[in-house]
Order: sequence, then C-alpha cells, then structure tokens
Amino acid sequence: MSELVTAAMVVIGDEILSGRTKDRNIGHLADMLTAVGIDLREVRIVSDDEAAIVEAVNALRARNTYVFTTGGIGPTHDDITADSIARAFDRPCGYDDKAYRLLEKHYAGRDIEFSNARKRMARMPEGAEHINNPISAAPGFRVENVYVMAGVPAIFQAMLDNVVPTLRAGVKLISETIPSPLPEGAIGGPLGEIQAAHPETIIGSYPKYRDGSFWTEIVVRSRSETALAAAVKAVGTMLEAMPPRQVAKG
Amino acid sequence: MSELVTAAMVVIGDEILSGRTKDRNIGHLADMLTAVGIDLREVRIVSDDEAAIVEAVNALRARNTYVFTTGGIGPTHDDITADSIARAFDRPCGYDDKAYRLLEKHYAGRDIEFSNARKRMARMPEGAEHINNPISAAPGFRVENVYVMAGVPAIFQAMLDNVVPTLRAGVKLISETIPSPLPEGAIGGPLGEIQAAHPETIIGSYPKYRDGSFWTEIVVRSRSETALAAAVKAVGTMLEAMPPRQVAKG
Repeated sequence: MSELVTAAMVVIGDEILSGRTKDRNIGHLADMLTAVGIDLREVRIVSDDEAAIVEAVNALRARNTYVFTTGGIGPTHDDITADSIARAFDRPCGYDDKAYRLLEKHYAGRDIEFSNARKRMARMPEGAEHINNPISAAPGFRVENVYVMAGVPAIFQAMLDNVVPTLRAGVKLISETIPSPLPEGAIGGPLGEIQAAHPETIIGSYPKYRDGSFWTEIVVRSRSETALAAAVKAVGTMLEAMPPRQVAKG
Repeated sequence: MSELVTAAMVVIGDEILSGRTKDRNIGHLADMLTAVGIDLREVRIVSDDEAAIVEAVNALRARNTYVFTTGGIGPTHDDITADSIARAFDRPCGYDDKAYRLLEKHYAGRDIEFSNARKRMARMPEGAEHINNPISAAPGFRVENVYVMAGVPAIFQAMLDNVVPTLRAGVKLISETIPSPLPEGAIGGPLGEIQAAHPETIIGSYPKYRDGSFWTEIVVRSRSETALAAAVKAVGTMLEAMPPRQVAKG
C-alpha cells in the first residue's frame, strides 16, 4: 500500500556559494515536502555554470520521482538555468509563444519596455509546461519530472504553492519528538538497541547545546502509527530507567 | 601568480532534509572561505546513508582542493560519518588511541561514564588527523583533503576556526556591490554587454523584491583590482544613461 515518492533539489547560484545570499528556499521546500509525505533525499547547490547544472539535474532526475530547482531564471546574462535544463534533456531552448505573449501583455499593461533582457524570461526548453508566477508574471516551467522555479523566496514560494497540489503525494511519515535532558553519550547505546528492535521506524538523535550543557532531541519517524507508538514507548521506558545522576551531570 | 583554490561541502543529516533543522553551517562556511579567497564550488546535503555519503565525498574530493563535511560524528547509532569517510578512502575505521585517551580523560574529569556510545566518538579512519574541539572535546578529523566536522553550529564554527588558518588560501576575489533602482529586466541587456567586454570579471545580478517592486543588486567580482574598477565604472556609466522613467516604473 505504501508508495515511496522521493525528491531532490538543485539550488543554482554563485551568490549562495559566496555567502552573499543566505539560502531560504531549502528549508521551505523540505517543510512542504515532508508535510505531504514526499522524501527529500538530496540537495545540491551549484554555481551559475552550465556543466555543473546539467550534471546535477541529470544525476538527480534519474533517481528521484521529482527534482525541484531554484534560481537562474531571470532576465540577465548570468541566468542560464533555462538553457542548462534544455541541455540536460537534449531539447532545443527558445522563446515559448505563450510565455512571450504573457510577458508582452504584462509589461504593456504597466507601460514598461519589453526589453530583450525581459524577453529572455520567455525562453524555455521545447515542450515545457508553465508554472504560474502570480508575483512577477515570468513563469517557471516543468520538463518531465523537473520543476524549474525562481530563486527569490517570495516568488519561489508562490510557484511552489501552485506545484505541490499537483504532486503525487507519498505516504506521510509521521513523527514524534521526545526531548531528553540526557546528552547523546548517555543514551546512544540503548537508543541503538531500540532502533535495531524497531526496524519499521527511523530513530534520529539530535544533539542540542545550550548554555554550556548538552541535551538531546530524539525523533522517532515511521509510516506506521503502530510501529511509531511501540518505539516511542520503548524510548520513554529507556529514559525513565536511566540513573538520575546522568541528568545532573549532562 | 594567481592560484585557484576550490572547495566543496557535504552536509550530512536527515534532519536538514526533513526540514526539522534549518542549516546554519552552509552560509558560515561560504563566508569564511570567501574571506580567505577560496572558491566554494558546490554543496551537497545528503541523508544519514553510507552509500550517499561515500558517493558525495568521493565525487567532490576528486575535483576540489578541499572538502568540508558537517554532521554525523556524535555518539548515537545514526552517526555514521566516520565509517562512511573510512569507506570512501577504503581505510579501516576503528578507535583512535589519542582520541580515546582524550575522551576518557575528559569524561573522568567530569565524573561522567565513558559509555560505549561516547567511545564511538573516538572512532575514525586509520591515519586521520584530529581537528580540535574546544567545546565538547570529541575531535573532528581530516583524511587527506577531507575535513570532517560536527553539525552543531557552535562546535562546527569552533572547529572551523582551527582549520581555516591551516588552509592554502587562494587569491582573494574582490568585489564591489552596486545597488540599482532599476529591475533586472531594464538593465539585463547592457549588463550582458559589459560582462562580455570585461572577461576578467564575474558580474552577478541579483533581483530583489520588496514591497511590491523590484530592484537589483549588481555585484562585480574579480581577482584584479584594475579589472574590477574598469567594470564597475562601465556599470555606473550604464546606469546613469538609463531613461529615468525606467526608475519610476521599476
């Protein structure tokens, strides 16, 4: 009954790799996909370089249900995503009639010149389908299982809102978080035994550090409510059985 | 005279891909490397999965001067980075004597049990060199050009502070940022011409969106001060020559 739906993301842009711009799209996509039960398996951040984009997109689209890209679809010379995606699929890249007319009308209505630079935003791989952009008109696009979206967070989020309802959703991974006042070192051994005894769950342990002491968030995930409940119970029993001095000494 | 020093990063952790934890290490590493003239070329975020870690590390270490990893070096069963790095280099992974004694002493001094889980943090690939961890003792490590560090931001940053001074620095990329009240669509054409005329520079154009209107940050980068100054001047001249109505209509 359960069907695994996986995804990967390619973030395109020198500005992220230089540190000038701090990415805000990875966390948002991760949250959205988790909410609908799609496993985000890998993210790659690559520079504005055609070979790098093609390599990442081709590696990831072959082994995932979906690939989402952000960045590089604007009007300037360093926006090379449309050409790179066309190259990855070995399709020609040119002006898309529908996108061209849409942008022509958009700018005419605002008395803004439909410059050659702006016309670039109508270019996409042959046969691409549009992803609607309610903010600045220039559409994103989809080719097969690759969704090409803007890097500006407000536009990316608006485009993604149009995409998510069209995706084949997976079986949602349900999770429960158990805060532990004990540090990882105190619980790592028994937690590993619990993981081994509950193979239908994925038990994550996340060290937290605050004001000079360590504590741990234990997250149990599963596609089965029964399996989740059993593992959560085992973790609770383990924590209760810990010697109290471990808590104090954190 | 100029030597290109490149780097890649591998972020390891299911919690980033699920959205539960928002990464804060990518931007920090990017800033630090840019400051010392090292080009961060690619970042990959992979899950706590040995095959995924091995593939990413091996692909990236072959084509970069340095690779930096974060995450997965704690004491719990889901911390598999040490084993995965050992596998990537085809080396055995076992207790490192020096790390074992360091941790034994660290915990003895705090009257904390040196549990089997904590002993895991002394495991590393044979021949690895330590990266000092001033916060929680358990060291990161280096194998050849791969630097393996913690995922907890405070510890990652402390480890990185120890690593950066040992790196072969590149020729620093200098940059100048020119804010443009004009949106990308208005300047994209002439900006592309300026890029073509100034091949020793990399001109980036970053669309900004605020309160319903678009503006642009133009960033000119170069390893040569002369080339930078010439391109910046050309951008300034271009902006001054723009029809003023483009500004108003943004």
